[in-house]
Amino acid sequence: MLGTAFMGRVHARAWREANHVTRLPLEVVCELIVSRSTNHGSEAARQLGFRRFSEDWKAAVADPGIDLVDICLPGDLHAEVAIAALEHGKHVLCEKPLANSLDEAAAMERAATTAAARGAFAMVGFNYRRVPALALARRLIREGRVGAIRQIRATYLQDWLVDAAVPVTWRLQAKRAGTGALGDLGSHLIDLVCWLSGQSVARVSSSAKTYVRQRPGARSLGHRGGPLPIEAVDVDDAVVAILVLQSGTLVTVEASRVAPGHKNDLSLEVTGDNGALRFNLERLNELEMLEFDPARAGTGFTRLLVTEPSDPYVHGWWPPGHVLGWEHAFNHEIADLVAALAENRQPEPSFSSGLGTQAVLAALDTSSQEMRWVAPDPRASLLDPVASLPNHPTQQQ
Amino acid sequence: MLGTAFMGRVHARAWREANHVTRLPLEVVCELIVSRSTNHGSEAARQLGFRRFSEDWKAAVADPGIDLVDICLPGDLHAEVAIAALEHGKHVLCEKPLANSLDEAAAMERAATTAAARGAFAMVGFNYRRVPALALARRLIREGRVGAIRQIRATYLQDWLVDAAVPVTWRLQAKRAGTGALGDLGSHLIDLVCWLSGQSVARVSSSAKTYVRQRPGARSLGHRGGPLPIEAVDVDDAVVAILVLQSGTLVTVEASRVAPGHKNDLSLEVTGDNGALRFNLERLNELEMLEFDPARAGTGFTRLLVTEPSDPYVHGWWPPGHVLGWEHAFNHEIADLVAALAENRQPEPSFSSGLGTQAVLAALDTSSQEMRWVAPDPRASLLDPVASLPNHPTQQQ
Amino acid sequence: MLGTAFMGRVHARAWREANHVTRLPLEVVCELIVSRSTNHGSEAARQLGFRRFSEDWKAAVADPGIDLVDICLPGDLHAEVAIAALEHGKHVLCEKPLANSLDEAAAMERAATTAAARGAFAMVGFNYRRVPALALARRLIREGRVGAIRQIRATYLQDWLVDAAVPVTWRLQAKRAGTGALGDLGSHLIDLVCWLSGQSVARVSSSAKTYVRQRPGARSLGHRGGPLPIEAVDVDDAVVAILVLQSGTLVTVEASRVAPGHKNDLSLEVTGDNGALRFNLERLNELEMLEFDPARAGTGFTRLLVTEPSDPYVHGWWPPGHVLGWEHAFNHEIADLVAALAENRQPEPSFSSGLGTQAVLAALDTSSQEMRWVAPDPRASLLDPVASLPNHPTQQQ
Amino acid sequence: MLGTAFMGRVHARAWREANHVTRLPLEVVCELIVSRSTNHGSEAARQLGFRRFSEDWKAAVADPGIDLVDICLPGDLHAEVAIAALEHGKHVLCEKPLANSLDEAAAMERAATTAAARGAFAMVGFNYRRVPALALARRLIREGRVGAIRQIRATYLQDWLVDAAVPVTWRLQAKRAGTGALGDLGSHLIDLVCWLSGQSVARVSSSAKTYVRQRPGARSLGHRGGPLPIEAVDVDDAVVAILVLQSGTLVTVEASRVAPGHKNDLSLEVTGDNGALRFNLERLNELEMLEFDPARAGTGFTRLLVTEPSDPYVHGWWPPGHVLGWEHAFNHEIADLVAALAENRQPEPSFSSGLGTQAVLAALDTSSQEMRWVAPDPRASLLDPVASLPNHPTQQQ
Repeated sequence: MLGTAFMGRVHARAWREANHVTRLPLEVVCELIVSRSTNHGSEAARQLGFRRFSEDWKAAVADPGIDLVDICLPGDLHAEVAIAALEHGKHVLCEKPLANSLDEAAAMERAATTAAARGAFAMVGFNYRRVPALALARRLIREGRVGAIRQIRATYLQDWLVDAAVPVTWRLQAKRAGTGALGDLGSHLIDLVCWLSGQSVARVSSSAKTYVRQRPGARSLGHRGGPLPIEAVDVDDAVVAILVLQSGTLVTVEASRVAPGHKNDLSLEVTGDNGALRFNLERLNELEMLEFDPARAGTGFTRLLVTEPSDPYVHGWWPPGHVLGWEHAFNHEIADLVAALAENRQPEPSFSSGLGTQAVLAALDTSSQEMRWVAPDPRASLLDPVASLPNHPTQQQ
Repeated sequence: MLGTAFMGRVHARAWREANHVTRLPLEVVCELIVSRSTNHGSEAARQLGFRRFSEDWKAAVADPGIDLVDICLPGDLHAEVAIAALEHGKHVLCEKPLANSLDEAAAMERAATTAAARGAFAMVGFNYRRVPALALARRLIREGRVGAIRQIRATYLQDWLVDAAVPVTWRLQAKRAGTGALGDLGSHLIDLVCWLSGQSVARVSSSAKTYVRQRPGARSLGHRGGPLPIEAVDVDDAVVAILVLQSGTLVTVEASRVAPGHKNDLSLEVTGDNGALRFNLERLNELEMLEFDPARAGTGFTRLLVTEPSDPYVHGWWPPGHVLGWEHAFNHEIADLVAALAENRQPEPSFSSGLGTQAVLAALDTSSQEMRWVAPDPRASLLDPVASLPNHPTQQQ
Repeated sequence: MLGTAFMGRVHARAWREANHVTRLPLEVVCELIVSRSTNHGSEAARQLGFRRFSEDWKAAVADPGIDLVDICLPGDLHAEVAIAALEHGKHVLCEKPLANSLDEAAAMERAATTAAARGAFAMVGFNYRRVPALALARRLIREGRVGAIRQIRATYLQDWLVDAAVPVTWRLQAKRAGTGALGDLGSHLIDLVCWLSGQSVARVSSSAKTYVRQRPGARSLGHRGGPLPIEAVDVDDAVVAILVLQSGTLVTVEASRVAPGHKNDLSLEVTGDNGALRFNLERLNELEMLEFDPARAGTGFTRLLVTEPSDPYVHGWWPPGHVLGWEHAFNHEIADLVAALAENRQPEPSFSSGLGTQAVLAALDTSSQEMRWVAPDPRASLLDPVASLPNHPTQQQ
Repeated sequence: MLGTAFMGRVHARAWREANHVTRLPLEVVCELIVSRSTNHGSEAARQLGFRRFSEDWKAAVADPGIDLVDICLPGDLHAEVAIAALEHGKHVLCEKPLANSLDEAAAMERAATTAAARGAFAMVGFNYRRVPALALARRLIREGRVGAIRQIRATYLQDWLVDAAVPVTWRLQAKRAGTGALGDLGSHLIDLVCWLSGQSVARVSSSAKTYVRQRPGARSLGHRGGPLPIEAVDVDDAVVAILVLQSGTLVTVEASRVAPGHKNDLSLEVTGDNGALRFNLERLNELEMLEFDPARAGTGFTRLLVTEPSDPYVHGWWPPGHVLGWEHAFNHEIADLVAALAENRQPEPSFSSGLGTQAVLAALDTSSQEMRWVAPDPRASLLDPVASLPNHPTQQQ
């Protein structure tokens, strides 16, 4: 595993628990963690539960004792590390979005395709596909419970950049993160819109905005106190868009890191010709459902508490009503990944699917800059096959 | 008053109660109602509480016993009737949207300007400005409680056209209604976005859709039973858009009459750099407010129950917590209108403001058809002056 | 009509509109309003829409030009006025609770029974029975949609006495109001529990509390400024209770006028062996429903927006989603009352039913004072017959 | 650890993660798990992450390689096991409620007091004290943010016994579980009411009910198929109560396992003379708060998302808005327990506090059976000291 910050800590917890939460077909061993400094790496290995640490990622991805490389690094490092790992025949799990540019993503997808032919598989970490309520939403959509999809409203709102005194991090630097709210938050929305609807994006119109154009500079390791230098922000704080999907579905998208009152609020409403579904990540155990019946016209949404054994991924956790948290999607992600690897098949979301999302992100970026509708690169139609949903047992019984 | 259907019934109830609910500076007399047939008109006059009825609208708007003409008719009749009434020196209250086209609206606005110089005033019935919670929202925004506005999400969702068996009415005919969800619902959204923000619309990108392209034909008076003929629908069922306001505020707009689970759901979220407000018409006594404080970062929205005597329009109704309904906005509208007329001043929303909204509707229509960003006609910048909010006493004490 | 304060204003508005909102079998004339002073009475008659006023209630209830007497007075006046009016052969509508004591209520019920034999009917104003969502709740319960009722939670929370600086009014004086939150708010809860369940109360255990034992004195007409004298409060601020109904249903009751965060929050949850219903008066257009199905175990409550033409009392108001307010229950109450009188039948809630509720209130009071379970007086079993629900058309079509 | 069912699985996961989630002062080793059968025990040890297993609990609690015994067994085994373990000088963590009877609980408390003098400490697992939102509620109450507490409404509603076809388990047998909803769910409510308010219970009035008096019998190991025998249910399905606390606070309590629409819904509203707090376990990351201000009378509850680093127990988990689940309270419980043991001090909730709750449960049981108010045994006043809240760092940084 590479990366010991937020995502590294979350992934590590899921890997540590993999053998215990899930009756997996393969045993997971947390072998090696890569960190930039020896001191930190030693402590990280102990704390995060890995056997060894290394400062040398290139050696790590070539290490014959390693079967799978998990990349929890800023976006500018994804392509180089993932391609190297795949070339060494390692399986790869890479955090989202796949890359910072369409070119990088395309190179990664090519490497993944080549590696897959040799039995090494790559997966991109769009973790929200494994939130039980969203997996249930997809199942209900595929069963036709809401009918043909007509409209989707997808918003992802956070507030951590409202305060203009918040300093620059790598997530606010185009050279590290590519874009701002668009790539960080919008990528989740695009992935979910396509995955839930089974449709690709035909055209987009977008407008992005950077409200706070200067912030205190990023803290460097050598910073000796005193006021931080002012640094320009070159990524977007917020972006809005309308999308038309291949079948004509209308979609509104809004992603913002300057939305007071919202902490980690990814909300979706999917409206079909026969029903609708609503979801809110801050209440992620719930799904609201509406099945339209002209004879019962006053009937509104029904709250489903997605904690039943029959709900996706829930089987084997706790009894109904004992709610799961945000992190549990990572347990499910890893369980699905290991199960796919044990069966020598491609896990989802594939790098192809990640490339598809990247193509839409690129189109949104272009649309906003050029103030026109943009049809994404044809690779935007690369979606994971719309197969039956996994209902993998995730816990001892 | 012209029109005895839904809007006619609502307006009549508000006019009947005008002298009793409000201590008005002028006494209201419900004098004459215009209906197309003698039988129906006689009954409507009795039921709706008017002294007389007439089948002849041209005579009515010229009648010297009439001071004010209230137009509750389909959009294609607005311009002709309103202009005639204004030319006869009558005050005019006209239902929204102002007209079916920008040209009609412009002619009406010219007539209103001319009439105003002679002391006859015109008002367009964007009733939601008088919902207490929305009037409070505007007050809070003007007091700076949310800071500079950055993003607005405005949706108006209904479900009455989900069922494909619902027959055509005038609201589904372009020649009568101009557009579909765009004009009917979207006009409210545009009016509120501009009124709340005090900003005009700089450019729009939009996509509209008609999902149900054929419906049973409109029932005609002569229909003798049997299946109704099939008729093409030539207005939109739903429209989505992104708007950029003059100061750069990003707005998403969604209007739909095919949104199952929503009956009359106009929802707004206005996000500033220092706070946010949320509103939902199906819970119209409530406003949610967020005042951002980095020191209390977990603080989310606070529910305000807008039923206090100090809240706009509430004074004189019932004690706190005794909620008002949808119709009460019309009591407030008429009270404000009469108060303005008594003081010989322009009531709001003026026809100029209605023309401004019409210009944005036209831009949205063009944008959707031509698949490009459109800057509205310059008259889109015609807004009502951002004056202090009325806090008119609306009831005996 | 007697009384020109809050309840008088609400009733007057409903009476004024009776002929217009509803196609009634009888024409309503607002003839005479009784007020204590000539000046105020004259203004009240004009403002509230009555033809005449009087200072002499005894003459008024004997007036041959009067058919019905509407009593909107403090509780200590109910018995004397109602009995006098019934003895003069007038129909009576009396605000709730029926009286301040069981003896007064019993005398009123006897007078009503005698009068009914001569064709004069009495009704007590438990207005919430005519809130559409609660009438729908009763219909659903009677249809068996929630099964046999097992538990009810009934709370009525207000906050207007939280502030210890709020002065005494008649509602805080035992000699005028009988009790505090118990009679004012608890009476609604008892009436609804029995009416919804069709059951009477078998035994009660209760505890009441006065938190603020002294307040500034009531303002008298002769008060010349300066600080108000301190006055003792001799009614309860809050009361809690558990009830067992005749069939064994368990009920918790909580009524409080010192509950910050609640303005007029009457909330109910009725739980059966096959489903449940929830209601909240601050969102009175909504009812939440749950139909239990072991095969769909994660299914929670469904929100019903009770604004459909098929919902009780809604027919003839506005299209679905155009919400009603608190006051509309009075329109429905008066429409039902007039319809019953036109058919020479007993309107509901009868004084017998009001007496039943009074018996439970007396038991709760005794229980709290004597710290023991109390079985109410046998007259607590006087309920209105559980007949089919009215679905009276309430508006012109 | 004893017990490999639901609670055993939850505890095991928390113990496994103890060294990784929290920078603990002691290292945790999952040494030995006790199970009734060799086969199951071996598998359980592997799956749950323990080094060894045993069939012999008596040997286990005497094992010199064991420092702490965690009891996840039915209530009838708590006393014997806990007392034996304490007598062997082991620390003990025992699931709630402490015991099935007041006598057993008293014996356990005596054993704990004796053991504590020798440095072995006992804790009872009222896990909800470590839900961040409830710990925050207590902090806010202790800071005076809601003022003096006047009313508490405490409900715990589940639905798993609505279906009469659900067979008997040990939780439905008085000899194993003591009582039904009262002990299982009501014990949490009593613990929280006392812990949040810092008050003990002065008197109670209660009514319990068993709605489904016969169910299919418990599956035994030897059951060979065919219909299960019918078995009588001798514990309560639901219980309601009113409590008066030592300072006069009024409390309503409702616990039910037959409440359709509720899965694991522990809800609290704590009302003070200056504010109020609301909590709902199915949305356990949220706390609603109201600070009363007569000058801002329409202000209702504010939603707090309790995911900030400054919130209790949250520091070291994920960034704000990344919600925790039900199980995380166990991580916090174990971290607090280990921290107390490392400092040689009594962890909370102590067995004394558990005995206090048991005394209230006994009083509720008596009250219901004898239909009278009951003052609990004086030991009901045994509460944990109201010390400052822990704000233990729970995760690597």
